[in-house]
Amino acid sequence: MPELRKDPVIGRWVVISTERGKRPLDFGRREATPRSGLCPFCEGNEDKTPPEILAFRDGGKPNSPGWRVRVVPNKFPALVVEGPLRPKGVGLYDMMNGIGAHEVIIETPRHDRTLSDFSVGELDELLLAYQSRLNDLQQDQRFRYLLLFKNQGEEAGASLEHSHTQLIATPIVPKRVIEELDGTARHFQAKERCIFCDILDQELWDGRRVVAENPHFAALAPFAARFPFETWILPKSHASHFAGIDAEQRRHFAAILSTVLRKLDVALDGPAYNYAIHTAPVNDRRDWYFHWHIEIMPKVTKVAGFEWGSGFYINPTPPEEAAEYLRELRLDPVPTEPP
Amino acid sequence: MPELRKDPVIGRWVVISTERGKRPLDFGRREATPRSGLCPFCEGNEDKTPPEILAFRDGGKPNSPGWRVRVVPNKFPALVVEGPLRPKGVGLYDMMNGIGAHEVIIETPRHDRTLSDFSVGELDELLLAYQSRLNDLQQDQRFRYLLLFKNQGEEAGASLEHSHTQLIATPIVPKRVIEELDGTARHFQAKERCIFCDILDQELWDGRRVVAENPHFAALAPFAARFPFETWILPKSHASHFAGIDAEQRRHFAAILSTVLRKLDVALDGPAYNYAIHTAPVNDRRDWYFHWHIEIMPKVTKVAGFEWGSGFYINPTPPEEAAEYLRELRLDPVPTEPP
Repeated sequence: MPELRKDPVIGRWVVISTERGKRPLDFGRREATPRSGLCPFCEGNEDKTPPEILAFRDGGKPNSPGWRVRVVPNKFPALVVEGPLRPKGVGLYDMMNGIGAHEVIIETPRHDRTLSDFSVGELDELLLAYQSRLNDLQQDQRFRYLLLFKNQGEEAGASLEHSHTQLIATPIVPKRVIEELDGTARHFQAKERCIFCDILDQELWDGRRVVAENPHFAALAPFAARFPFETWILPKSHASHFAGIDAEQRRHFAAILSTVLRKLDVALDGPAYNYAIHTAPVNDRRDWYFHWHIEIMPKVTKVAGFEWGSGFYINPTPPEEAAEYLRELRLDPVPTEPP
Repeated sequence: MPELRKDPVIGRWVVISTERGKRPLDFGRREATPRSGLCPFCEGNEDKTPPEILAFRDGGKPNSPGWRVRVVPNKFPALVVEGPLRPKGVGLYDMMNGIGAHEVIIETPRHDRTLSDFSVGELDELLLAYQSRLNDLQQDQRFRYLLLFKNQGEEAGASLEHSHTQLIATPIVPKRVIEELDGTARHFQAKERCIFCDILDQELWDGRRVVAENPHFAALAPFAARFPFETWILPKSHASHFAGIDAEQRRHFAAILSTVLRKLDVALDGPAYNYAIHTAPVNDRRDWYFHWHIEIMPKVTKVAGFEWGSGFYINPTPPEEAAEYLRELRLDPVPTEPP
């Protein structure tokens, strides 16, 4: 059973994941992650994953070919879904058993496609899969946060090459989310407005950090970007939960996400990247101030001791320059059918 | 002139480092960092760096061979030392000009040595160089924090192979340090004790997470370790500033640092790692509660979207197992002379 442990000084939670089996000796030699061979996420290999939780299909029975998007439990979960939550103290430390969920959203049956090859319709369906899983998992009263994130490319931490997203449900609200909630609450108390709404107003008026825009969404290089070409996409109207968007909004989100990923793909030559959807906690009263958004972080520089030691970042590319470059980049028309 | 910009929601500062010249097009192809060729940190190449600030020498004039440890300004500084500090607002954002210092401590004249090859005496002298630079820089009233950190190996973000430490002086206190100060202050208000002193008491009594110990220092795997084999070294007596240690304490710190680095080197087969010295801010009244320490983070797993999105870590190696493995590892005697 994995454990959740809290740093007693700064309140950061860590999963000590005993299920994943990295014992001291496993690190003796640098791991050579197998890249070739049988991919458990490819169509036809459905028996190589745990049984599916959700699939959008053209036909076929569950756990057989014919799917377009497929959601399965992670075979090596960081947290496990069975059992009641048991918080406890160990001297001055706080911990709890590692209750949660860890799912994998396999974005495509094909090994050779990534999100920047997707049509807007395909991305829309992927976002629908995200939304469906969030709406299901938030029924579980043990969970406080549902984190959707993607690691694209080995340098971004992907351990399997086949394009996929992960969803982790946790019984605590992660530190970074609490910081964002606290920041939005502070601004609301001072101004009676949402800080992300204020940021959108200022950025759309200023224009220098705008990467793309449509009727419902704006893509921005954040003023204090940590990484070169870091890009955030925010809904223009205040909304705290990603899972609450309607079909029209989802379509516009798919369209702007497609534009941003394709522009990054061209500008940075198929970069490794991470993205994470920042949405309000579930089963929590503090959510009203929050303004959901996605943060996309290309991995073109390495994070080093300075950043780890201080939480203070050095970004060699001014966000205004990155935004201008991406904004003015011309793309081929968006594909509407898979090739 | 670089700029310091503050994230308006969570208060994280970022250096937008215009001097480092990473323009959008520079990322078009993955950078091939030149590893071979003329190393500016090797003995004999002193004219390839800015003039030295400090050197410990067996002989020779400044900026010529004969040194054992040499400190120079970073040729591509993230922050620049000249000028007054000018904070300003830009709409709802906060920023200031990028005033600070960025120095490089070249640890050895030889390209083929790393800290795990050093004798305790050599490490002691390196720590004396750290201490001397901190004592000098803290005279500058513009600076609020002095961060010493090391990136060992390309995977840990080192851009030059030759073993070196960096020192960055910043006009703000970094977010991570503020979090640690807040955590120690909260504990002091509740208990009238230092939380790190309480952690040391509990860990030395418990014993399972102790890696090494001597009369003045303890090396621990932290209870909520983020990374496999993460190790912290703390002074047993309360002290807020690393720069204030005396010669006897420094010798004991050098000895335990040598033990830990050599054990990690054997256990993980010469891993890439980062370390950072966490010490109290300078020119600041909030420093009393703080308990300085060093955090050593081997890079054997990749940090991925989950960690970036949430500030929540997954560690596949329980710290008790890592500590036991390191504690019981037998080392050859410490070298007392350079080979």
